[in-house]
Amino acid sequence: MMIFKRGLSTMASLKKAGKVVCIGRNYADHITELNSARPKQPFFFLKPTSSILTPGQGPVIRPRGIDLHYEVELALILGKQVRDLNSNDLKGALDSIESYALSIDMTARNVQNEAKKKGLPWSIAKGFDTFLPMSNIIQKSAIPDPHNIELYLTVNDKVQQNDSTELMLFNIPQILGDISRVMTLEPGDIVLTGTPKGVGPVVPGDVMRAGIRVNGKELEDAKIEVK
Amino acid sequence: MMIFKRGLSTMASLKKAGKVVCIGRNYADHITELNSARPKQPFFFLKPTSSILTPGQGPVIRPRGIDLHYEVELALILGKQVRDLNSNDLKGALDSIESYALSIDMTARNVQNEAKKKGLPWSIAKGFDTFLPMSNIIQKSAIPDPHNIELYLTVNDKVQQNDSTELMLFNIPQILGDISRVMTLEPGDIVLTGTPKGVGPVVPGDVMRAGIRVNGKELEDAKIEVK
Ligand SMILES: [Mg+2]
Ligand SMILES: [Mg+2]
Ligand SMILES: [Mg+2]
Repeated sequence: MMIFKRGLSTMASLKKAGKVVCIGRNYADHITELNSARPKQPFFFLKPTSSILTPGQGPVIRPRGIDLHYEVELALILGKQVRDLNSNDLKGALDSIESYALSIDMTARNVQNEAKKKGLPWSIAKGFDTFLPMSNIIQKSAIPDPHNIELYLTVNDKVQQNDSTELMLFNIPQILGDISRVMTLEPGDIVLTGTPKGVGPVVPGDVMRAGIRVNGKELEDAKIEVK
Repeated sequence: MMIFKRGLSTMASLKKAGKVVCIGRNYADHITELNSARPKQPFFFLKPTSSILTPGQGPVIRPRGIDLHYEVELALILGKQVRDLNSNDLKGALDSIESYALSIDMTARNVQNEAKKKGLPWSIAKGFDTFLPMSNIIQKSAIPDPHNIELYLTVNDKVQQNDSTELMLFNIPQILGDISRVMTLEPGDIVLTGTPKGVGPVVPGDVMRAGIRVNGKELEDAKIEVK
């Protein structure tokens, strides 16, 4: 039996989230590095909750023949139902957030490129088991302004991604506005806000570390270390 | 608080399913009618559980500017965890099913066509609220052979879809094999098995009725009636 309680985010509850909704192409330099078109509106896709890897749960599994890429992203964990949010409603957007987490949107890049070429869904490229490593829950108060924190990711201690969330093309009210005009967001749902530049491949044996700095100070709960 | 119990499918539990996984292009004549390519392997996508519309829950909402299409599909409701199922394992596949339902995979066809052209995800086209009307739970014993039942859908009493599940290109073991090699299926998860030919538009005011016949006999629990 699973019990999921509104307003109580625990690591165990993460895997019982109703859905994980992810924004694509939300940082200009990342769009450039993948030769993608800049979207006029945020677009988004779903990852299955079965892809979530909670801290200490073990390695990301690279399926055979897969070009596996990391994408570090700030995750929002909702505490309220959100429907038709006004994209200018900063207060409403922030009020709907219960807590945060750091996440790595692992992507089978070759499968995704093939899907794009053929006009097929992205669900396979984004949805393998273990393709969503997450940090511990970050208390909301630890991030006073989610539009002004630094996300970083290293591979084998080399910094690969390191940018401020100021660089988001669509801010959180716009993201939640656009999603919630299509699908109602429910308490416990997880929203990934896009990745800055610097994505790249990892192979078995590599160690990814990711984290968040707020005013230059590292958040302990945001740390991810995963092979 | 939501309580979800393994092995107990109720209408209320449907909306708490971990995920809804849908097979695309699984009937040859439907592939032809959409001018799509025939897949070598089953491909699939996710619908959010927030799109589920349980019986009597009310009309399908057509978002403004959307070309709304119906796709009647047999839904499997899983009773077991499934991982790496062998695609030849008919017994294993059928054993993993706890019950069935009929479903209508509502699709924003113009949004989907645009997504295909641009290589974008299908999640918006498939994921609006109310885009997954479902029937009551169908007891497993009511469908002795899921590969030999008739699915039908009428719009304003005109038959639009009416075909046997014998016409599936990929049968249930192949479908569950392919999905479960990517993502673990969990008890309560819902799998849509594709739509036969005859998809088309509906507009507000239209009445869709759908059902299943087993050996020519209508299953009461499979009936969907929705505006
Ligand atoms: Mg991403
Ligand atoms: Mg889900
Ligand atoms: Mg379909």
